[in-house]
Amino acid sequence: MCVAKKILFVVLDGAADRPTVAATTPLKAATTPFFDRLAQDGILGIMDVIAPGTPPGSDTAHLSLLGYPVDKVYTGRGPFEAAGVGIKVRPGDIAFRGNFATVKDGIVVDRRAGRIDDTKSLSDAIREQLDLDCEFLFKESAGHRAVLVLRGEGLSPKITQTDPKHVGPFLYSKPIAKDASARRTAKIVNDFTRQVSLILGNHPVNVERSRSNLLPANAVLLRGVGSVPHLVPFEKRTGLKAAVIAATALVIGIGILTGMTYIPTKGATGHIDSNIDEKVKNVNEALKRHTFVLLNIKGADEAGHDGDFNAKTHFLERVDKALSNLEIDDETLVVITADHTTPISLKEHSGDPVPFLIRGQGVRADQTSVFNEYIAATGGMDRICGRDIMPVLTDLLGKGVKFGA
Amino acid sequence: MCVAKKILFVVLDGAADRPTVAATTPLKAATTPFFDRLAQDGILGIMDVIAPGTPPGSDTAHLSLLGYPVDKVYTGRGPFEAAGVGIKVRPGDIAFRGNFATVKDGIVVDRRAGRIDDTKSLSDAIREQLDLDCEFLFKESAGHRAVLVLRGEGLSPKITQTDPKHVGPFLYSKPIAKDASARRTAKIVNDFTRQVSLILGNHPVNVERSRSNLLPANAVLLRGVGSVPHLVPFEKRTGLKAAVIAATALVIGIGILTGMTYIPTKGATGHIDSNIDEKVKNVNEALKRHTFVLLNIKGADEAGHDGDFNAKTHFLERVDKALSNLEIDDETLVVITADHTTPISLKEHSGDPVPFLIRGQGVRADQTSVFNEYIAATGGMDRICGRDIMPVLTDLLGKGVKFGA
Repeated sequence: MCVAKKILFVVLDGAADRPTVAATTPLKAATTPFFDRLAQDGILGIMDVIAPGTPPGSDTAHLSLLGYPVDKVYTGRGPFEAAGVGIKVRPGDIAFRGNFATVKDGIVVDRRAGRIDDTKSLSDAIREQLDLDCEFLFKESAGHRAVLVLRGEGLSPKITQTDPKHVGPFLYSKPIAKDASARRTAKIVNDFTRQVSLILGNHPVNVERSRSNLLPANAVLLRGVGSVPHLVPFEKRTGLKAAVIAATALVIGIGILTGMTYIPTKGATGHIDSNIDEKVKNVNEALKRHTFVLLNIKGADEAGHDGDFNAKTHFLERVDKALSNLEIDDETLVVITADHTTPISLKEHSGDPVPFLIRGQGVRADQTSVFNEYIAATGGMDRICGRDIMPVLTDLLGKGVKFGA
Repeated sequence: MCVAKKILFVVLDGAADRPTVAATTPLKAATTPFFDRLAQDGILGIMDVIAPGTPPGSDTAHLSLLGYPVDKVYTGRGPFEAAGVGIKVRPGDIAFRGNFATVKDGIVVDRRAGRIDDTKSLSDAIREQLDLDCEFLFKESAGHRAVLVLRGEGLSPKITQTDPKHVGPFLYSKPIAKDASARRTAKIVNDFTRQVSLILGNHPVNVERSRSNLLPANAVLLRGVGSVPHLVPFEKRTGLKAAVIAATALVIGIGILTGMTYIPTKGATGHIDSNIDEKVKNVNEALKRHTFVLLNIKGADEAGHDGDFNAKTHFLERVDKALSNLEIDDETLVVITADHTTPISLKEHSGDPVPFLIRGQGVRADQTSVFNEYIAATGGMDRICGRDIMPVLTDLLGKGVKFGA
């Protein structure tokens, strides 16, 4: 008989929205014949990715959608970013996101050091000269970004960050728990800050930047501190052999930390100019060797953060067109959803439910034939929680975990 | 004013389904004018009996529907089967389901001993000759089935079962917890196995069976081990005087263990040939003396396990016709639902939500006028959890338990 065998899980990052003055959303305004055909063949619903009214981060959202209990495993974004840029983090490591920044007389004057885009030799210098009271790993990432990982016994994520998040006085880290580990970790972080300031202050790159009237990258601000969680591998939880296709380090890192195979995509930028067609090709290939493919497409979130209705709408139309080249038969359950709402009106994540659709064998197809926030709310799945969607999907594959006899 | 006074709770066991190739389900395909009239007068919804995507057992499902916290009270099916065949189990007893089986040279060659149908004298022999290191009760049940109950201090359900569930090597029980009780219980179970083998091996019934070329019933395989939970009586929880009308030992046992009156029905078999008319007569009588009647009708689940779409559809039509003779006015809330989905395509329970309807005084009747999985998803109750339906019903009777002032 007919039971689906694979899952393609598409996350349109931040695609959901609230109505603007025109009483519509980008997803409602966009012409999306492919999504609508999936809606017609499938079942729709709305989903509280974390909880009603709670704006999810992209990190907690993806963990929740993959079925992990975020309230137990999540302490911060750093671990996932670190894994996503290729650091082999271990459970218990303390990881941070970092920004190369410009600090002058104790004031952060530019959090991105004039959007510096090559920090390789600065990072080399940090790696060579830094001497901390614990093992550490430091790695540059895209643009002004970097990650720091502290490793060993007696460390804690219970400390404040050094990134003020806006122009203003530089911050020192403080423990927020009354234990020796937190005190020690804050001390190490402040030591990192002092040493990095010395290492970068007179680095040839910065001397040259000052000479060219560019802001020097003379500090590294830390944020997103978290302890690397022990995550039961996704394959062990679900029996599915999984791959992740994404452009952002965060989502890649979540894939890697849950044991998925990361498939890089040429030209995938995480911006609205991303090469979606290339991602679709990768998905089609990946579905031949995997039973679960997580595809994250980031652009709509970016447009939402920029408050650009038209850019978000057009990007979603471009995604719809690109995804119409997916090679998916009825044996592949297709999920289309968002990890959170990023309203044009807020330019930030919100806690509105996101729309979702499931299409494939065994699905109780409903009467809907359009995919957007409004129609999804009338769909046959009604309203579920983010953590419930993976059990629903594995159950559709006939792999539900029975409770009772 | 008009407030309903009684509840008739009808569980169409395993009646819910997924769409097959014809994009329909037995409940959708069946002609069910009575259910549809109830739908028209009442309110519909879908229900996650345990949790979204979790396939319930019939045991956990019924407990949840009756409002019990299954994750706290449920350790296995044995206790309910034991109560259902008439053993007066006590909280803390360790109970098993048993199968008379044929074992040859350590291999289970037939789990049902050639579907033996009378095990009375074999069971008498076990009761008379068995000598275990604790108090015990053994009772034969329908066909090849039986139950074993161990009683006393220092026993534990944390052991493995001896039933391999398929043809293959016989299993010995092992403790799965590192405590003396588990070790002792596994030892007692293995002693049971050895003694039963000796008692049955040369029993006249088996000598005669071998002579007639029938498989001897020379072993009893045990499964479904569980500790009898302490269940707060249903009447104490809800204020309702309850009766259970069902054919299967499991549901009868759940009724008995929650303090309901069990009303036996002549000709109720638990199969698709069951005498539903007789059950309906019993319900009509029971509603005169009780304020809650649980009616379980098993056949649709059986047809689902057999993967027989037509049998399931026709059975549901037969049920609809029989139930149309229910004598129920508006003062009786009627609930029609399923304990779980048993898709034709899986032949096993699945975690899809089940449809339900509530009809009677006080119900906010919605626009639906047909009862099936699809229409229910559009109903006014949206989507609820199994454990919530009893509070909803008692509240409709004006007996809700207020929280706050």
